[in-house]
Amino acid sequence: MRVRNKPWAKDFIKDHSEYIVDNPEQWKGKWSNRFNKKQPIHVEIGTGKGQFIVEMAREHPEINFLGIEIQETVIAIALKKVVASELPNLQMVHTDGAGIDTFFDEHEIDTIYLNFSDPWPKKRHAKRRLTSPKFLDSYKKVLKKDAPIVFKTDNRGLFEYSIITFNNYGMYFDLLSLDLHNSEYMEDNIETEYEHKFSAKGPIYKVIAYFNKNKED
Amino acid sequence: MRVRNKPWAKDFIKDHSEYIVDNPEQWKGKWSNRFNKKQPIHVEIGTGKGQFIVEMAREHPEINFLGIEIQETVIAIALKKVVASELPNLQMVHTDGAGIDTFFDEHEIDTIYLNFSDPWPKKRHAKRRLTSPKFLDSYKKVLKKDAPIVFKTDNRGLFEYSIITFNNYGMYFDLLSLDLHNSEYMEDNIETEYEHKFSAKGPIYKVIAYFNKNKED
Ligand SMILES: C[S@@+](CC[C@H](N)C(=O)[O-])C[C@H]1O[C@@H](n2cnc3c(N)ncnc32)[C@H](O)[C@@H]1O
Ligand SMILES: C[S@@+](CC[C@H](N)C(=O)[O-])C[C@H]1O[C@@H](n2cnc3c(N)ncnc32)[C@H](O)[C@@H]1O
Repeated sequence: MRVRNKPWAKDFIKDHSEYIVDNPEQWKGKWSNRFNKKQPIHVEIGTGKGQFIVEMAREHPEINFLGIEIQETVIAIALKKVVASELPNLQMVHTDGAGIDTFFDEHEIDTIYLNFSDPWPKKRHAKRRLTSPKFLDSYKKVLKKDAPIVFKTDNRGLFEYSIITFNNYGMYFDLLSLDLHNSEYMEDNIETEYEHKFSAKGPIYKVIAYFNKNKED
Repeated sequence: MRVRNKPWAKDFIKDHSEYIVDNPEQWKGKWSNRFNKKQPIHVEIGTGKGQFIVEMAREHPEINFLGIEIQETVIAIALKKVVASELPNLQMVHTDGAGIDTFFDEHEIDTIYLNFSDPWPKKRHAKRRLTSPKFLDSYKKVLKKDAPIVFKTDNRGLFEYSIITFNNYGMYFDLLSLDLHNSEYMEDNIETEYEHKFSAKGPIYKVIAYFNKNKED
C-alpha cells in the first residue's frame, strides 16, 4: 500500500507525541513507561491505518499495544483513530520494523501481530518479507519464550512461503486456518482494513506460531 | 468412500495373484522380488480405484510402485486397471495401511503418497487419520532417511490438521501449495479419481514433507 504524502501528517504527528514515538531505540527496555500500567506488550508490525490495533486495545485493557508503521502518512491516519480513542494502553511507533531488536530488550514483548504484510512476490525480494528468516531472528530475540507470532493474510504465495519458513525455522504451530472467515475462529476475530477489503475475494489465512514448544500434543 | 461389495471382486483378485498380495508381512524386506527389477519403491496408501498409481507406474518405469487399499471391491476395481496395464513395476496390496511397519523393513521405501485420505472429521476419530502421529511413527520407520511423504487433499480440515501435525512432529516442508491446480506445480501433476471430481469445487492442497532436513535453506 503506497499512500500519497499528505502535508498535514507531519504536523499531526508532532502535535500528538503523547501517542506516538519516532525514536524507539530510546524506549528500549522501558516501554512500560509509555503506558499508565506495566502489563504485557503486544506489537503489530505494519499496522497500516490502525483499525485492528485500536480495536484490540479497546477490547483488551489488560494489554499494552504498540503499532509499528513505516509510512508517515499511513501512521498519521492510524494516529487519528488512536487520538480519538483516548486509550491509555495504545501507542504508535513510526519506524521500520526491521530494527525491532534494536528497540526492544530481549524477551520484552508478549505477542507479535503481522497482518496482511506486503507480499514482495518476487523471489529476489524475499528478504523483505516480514516472515523471512532474518526477521524471525529478531522476533525470536524480542519475544518472550512462550510468546506467539500471529499472522493473517489473504496472499496465498506469502502464506505458503511463511508456513515453509516457520516450519524450517523449527517453529511450532498452534492454530492454522486456511479459510478463517469460514472457521470456528471467527468469534474473536478483529478485522483489519485489508481483511475487510479482501475477505470477499478469497480465503483469509491465519497461523499462530511459537519458537518454543509450549505444550504436549 | 464406501463401495458396495461386488461378488466378482474376490475371484478377480484370486485369479490375478501375480499383481496383488494379501499377505504383505511375508514380503517384508523382499519386495523387490515381486518386481522384475530392484529399484526404488514408492507406496500409495489408500490407493482407491488406482488411476494415480497406474499412471505414475506408466510414467516412471525406473520406480517400483505398490498401491495399498483396504477395501476389497475398491482394490479389485484398481486391479482391473493394473492387469490391463501389464506394467512390470506395479503391484497392489490388499491390506490396512496401519500395519505398514510390519510389512516393510526399516528404510525399505523411498516415497509414501497419501491422496485424498479419508478425513475422519470428528476429533475423537483423529487417530484414524493417515497423517496422525501414530501413522507418522510407522512411516518414519519404513521410509529412507531422505524420503518424503507426498500428500494431496481437497479437505481443508484434514490439511490444516496434517500441516500442524507434520510441523509439530518436527518434519520439514519442501513444497507447499494451497491451490495446486492454479500453481506452477501442475506440470507434472498426476490426478487421482477424487482430485478429478473435487478440483472444480475448491482448492486442492499439497505438501511434501520429510522427517529429516535434506538441504540447507
Ligand atoms: C498491505 S498493508 C496492511 C496494513 C494493515 N496491517 C491491514 O491489514 O490493513 C502493509 C503495511 O505494512 C507497512 N510496512 C511494510 N513494511 C514495513 C516495515 N518494515 N516496518 C513497518 N511497517 C511496514 C506498510 O507501510 C503498510 O502500511
Ligand atoms: C477418499 S478415498 C481416495 C482414493 C484415491 N486415493 C483418490 O484420491 O481418488 C480413500 C481411500 O483410502 C482407503 N483407505 C482408508 N483407510 C485405509 C487404510 N488404513 N489402509 C488402506 N486403505 C485405506 C479407503 O478404502 C478409500 O479407498
